Amino acid sequence: MSKMLEEIREQPAALERTLKAELRGFEKLRRRFAQQRPRFVVLAARGTSDNAAQFGRYLIEITTGIPVALAAPSISTLYQAPILMEGGVLVAVSQSGESTDTNVVLEEAKRQGAFTIGVTNEASSTLARIADHAILVRAGREKSVAATKTYTGQLLAFYLLAWALGADLDLDDLRRLPARAAAALKLEKEIAVRAERFRFMDHAVVIGRGLNYANAFEWALKLMETCYIVAERFSQADILHGPIAMVGQSFPSFLLTPPGVTWPVMKELIAKLNSLKAETLILTDRSNPEAPKSAIRIPESLSFKSKKALPADLYTAIPYIIPAQLFAASLAAVKGLNPDQPRGLSKVTLTL
Amino acid sequence: MSKMLEEIREQPAALERTLKAELRGFEKLRRRFAQQRPRFVVLAARGTSDNAAQFGRYLIEITTGIPVALAAPSISTLYQAPILMEGGVLVAVSQSGESTDTNVVLEEAKRQGAFTIGVTNEASSTLARIADHAILVRAGREKSVAATKTYTGQLLAFYLLAWALGADLDLDDLRRLPARAAAALKLEKEIAVRAERFRFMDHAVVIGRGLNYANAFEWALKLMETCYIVAERFSQADILHGPIAMVGQSFPSFLLTPPGVTWPVMKELIAKLNSLKAETLILTDRSNPEAPKSAIRIPESLSFKSKKALPADLYTAIPYIIPAQLFAASLAAVKGLNPDQPRGLSKVTLTL
Repeated sequence: MSKMLEEIREQPAALERTLKAELRGFEKLRRRFAQQRPRFVVLAARGTSDNAAQFGRYLIEITTGIPVALAAPSISTLYQAPILMEGGVLVAVSQSGESTDTNVVLEEAKRQGAFTIGVTNEASSTLARIADHAILVRAGREKSVAATKTYTGQLLAFYLLAWALGADLDLDDLRRLPARAAAALKLEKEIAVRAERFRFMDHAVVIGRGLNYANAFEWALKLMETCYIVAERFSQADILHGPIAMVGQSFPSFLLTPPGVTWPVMKELIAKLNSLKAETLILTDRSNPEAPKSAIRIPESLSFKSKKALPADLYTAIPYIIPAQLFAASLAAVKGLNPDQPRGLSKVTLTL
Repeated sequence: MSKMLEEIREQPAALERTLKAELRGFEKLRRRFAQQRPRFVVLAARGTSDNAAQFGRYLIEITTGIPVALAAPSISTLYQAPILMEGGVLVAVSQSGESTDTNVVLEEAKRQGAFTIGVTNEASSTLARIADHAILVRAGREKSVAATKTYTGQLLAFYLLAWALGADLDLDDLRRLPARAAAALKLEKEIAVRAERFRFMDHAVVIGRGLNYANAFEWALKLMETCYIVAERFSQADILHGPIAMVGQSFPSFLLTPPGVTWPVMKELIAKLNSLKAETLILTDRSNPEAPKSAIRIPESLSFKSKKALPADLYTAIPYIIPAQLFAASLAAVKGLNPDQPRGLSKVTLTL
């Protein structure tokens, strides 16, 4: 069994650990932000961490209304142009905490007046040391090059960060996330069977929207790095603005489609892909009455305790990426590839 | 000849027209912003216009230090979550000015306290009417579904907008952009010959960095919509964080690599792609002594009049996208496709 698959299975326990150990730190942040609401938030990351940041962007904007930007690191690292960060918060996300560029962006933002937060899996890393406030994703050492448990740990960190920024989330709902992850893991055997069909797939497109847009990027990244598939990733709207032209008969299309506000437009897209005779693999909820029979059904991702007016897909991000991770790990096995050691990659990538 | 190719050729004249007619409006904006500097800028767009916005993001941050975010339209259109826009500027970009989502984002930002700017090619469009300030890209009616002359018009609008936001640019340098576009157009025959080799290409990756990152997205979009190629697009750093694993022998890789601060890291990437035996097609400058012999050489994109300390690649965005547009138009012809009418697309795409 690959380390990747082992680490996928560790996710409920890892999430549990992070929740327990980190809540106090987020309470402190929440008190801080209650006194001084940030004017804007900038997120800096690369690779899988950047996909988690993309999720964080949607989550923070939807639940707090604070404008969020994803940093373009080259502006600090190559152009060395200062950004006016006064009144802003910079959140740097890195599994290892040793990404040169992410750390440069954080240090520069600090110099320009931002309050800085580092989200990392390594307590003794440079990032944890240089950030004003460090958040630890307590996933345990990640051995597979393909990140899985640190991604869901980072997603959890963003739920807690949104709460700290004033989002009206219920902590009891957050405490249910490990159980939701465990429920999604029950799909492992079904997914292994479904992956067989894609043995000879060499390209694909992954499509999500809103709170599952980041997951489309992450699923595609897993397909690229563990299965060497040329995997495009788009929002449901963006693919219609041009890229849909490349989709012809049998084009493999993976969709993350929970019920909620994104379902009606995703349903239209599924109909369009069907009319093009594309091959679709659809992740949706067990409770979704409108999804096609062939869809993979995710249990227990929707309901939450809170009686607040929150989007139905608010807590789908973690349970929806798990079958996608399982799919990539299974497909790598079917293709005879080792997902723990993708060609040309190492665990810590240093870029500027 | 395709309308796309006709419109590619019209670009110097179109840029000339926009410069002449719009300068006064930008002078007015510059006076406004000199009195009240925006705290942040949010850009809203889809498709090719979104690629122009991506360029605008880099340009504005590098030359003014004002933080810039790209809007996620679903937050307004589907989640209907208000974003706190006080002290911010919202710039919506749309060729037709009739993109439902972009217009919704603009109206919502206005309600939340933003000053709003609309950039469009259509003077009588909804966008031009609802924005506090309208900027017209005077490219003339764009008939090809694949946008070309409106893209470079939008790039020019962002140079002028950066200047209005306080960037220390020289207007004489901006006035030379039409001539730079004309110089790049002289590559048409060379590019048509080079495109032949790619007759049977069905996937590719396009890579840029910094001020040419947006051009990587735009080149890939042109390859997707006019040649039905599965075209990935990454920054030089992002491809190293995972996707490089999919690059094997003969993998077609297109690179936008002007001299300047991005050249050293792009040069390293070229060496890495060569070691993987990938096929590379490199756009660089006539003056670049370090580029391989096989590179396509763009004339007159570097030097500028201003004596200010500005990045060497500041004005490369327009001359570098023109050979890419020519390449897509030529390759569509080689493949026997009509770039003016991509399958499944129409000129105005309505999404939420």
